[in-house]
Amino acid sequence: MAYVLQVDFKMDGPFGDEMAEEFSDLAKSINEEEGFMWKIWTENQETNDVGGIYIFKTKETAEKYLDMHSKRLARLGIEDVNAKIFSINSKLTEITKGPII
Amino acid sequence: MAYVLQVDFKMDGPFGDEMAEEFSDLAKSINEEEGFMWKIWTENQETNDVGGIYIFKTKETAEKYLDMHSKRLARLGIEDVNAKIFSINSKLTEITKGPII
Repeated sequence: MAYVLQVDFKMDGPFGDEMAEEFSDLAKSINEEEGFMWKIWTENQETNDVGGIYIFKTKETAEKYLDMHSKRLARLGIEDVNAKIFSINSKLTEITKGPII
Repeated sequence: MAYVLQVDFKMDGPFGDEMAEEFSDLAKSINEEEGFMWKIWTENQETNDVGGIYIFKTKETAEKYLDMHSKRLARLGIEDVNAKIFSINSKLTEITKGPII
């Protein structure tokens, strides 16, 4: 059963196309992480919140990624990270057309 | 451009199949909300966190839904709701196979 990793934190930019350019290599590397299925990249230029909605194949791979990602963000000076890992209620998600098994 | 609404809050259950049974009519009604595209239902039985990852067609419809949903949760006694609305970085999301335009 797949797991959701929900992450957000404050960042002063870049956003939009500039962000895409700066992080495209990172994005490609995320595709190679163990258990990774997909990520939607989130940003709010008004509040300087950025983050992502990830799907991992297992709770363990989500936890492992979050641990690595938190350390990577800390190296960039970002210590205050909101992160939660959830299982998925498949029956309700099926009703509301969520794109996940 | 689509928007992400990320919501979570504490709830003492029900979870899993019981939750699905209790909220299936609610789930069907969410499909009818203006601008709604999909929702993944999230739950963590260890921490009593529940919530959802929603996609709406516009920022305005995401905001309108959140306002209505917050009032509905307040009527159930749930006042402490974490909610954030984000735009999507399409270029990075395409690289990481996020299931959204």
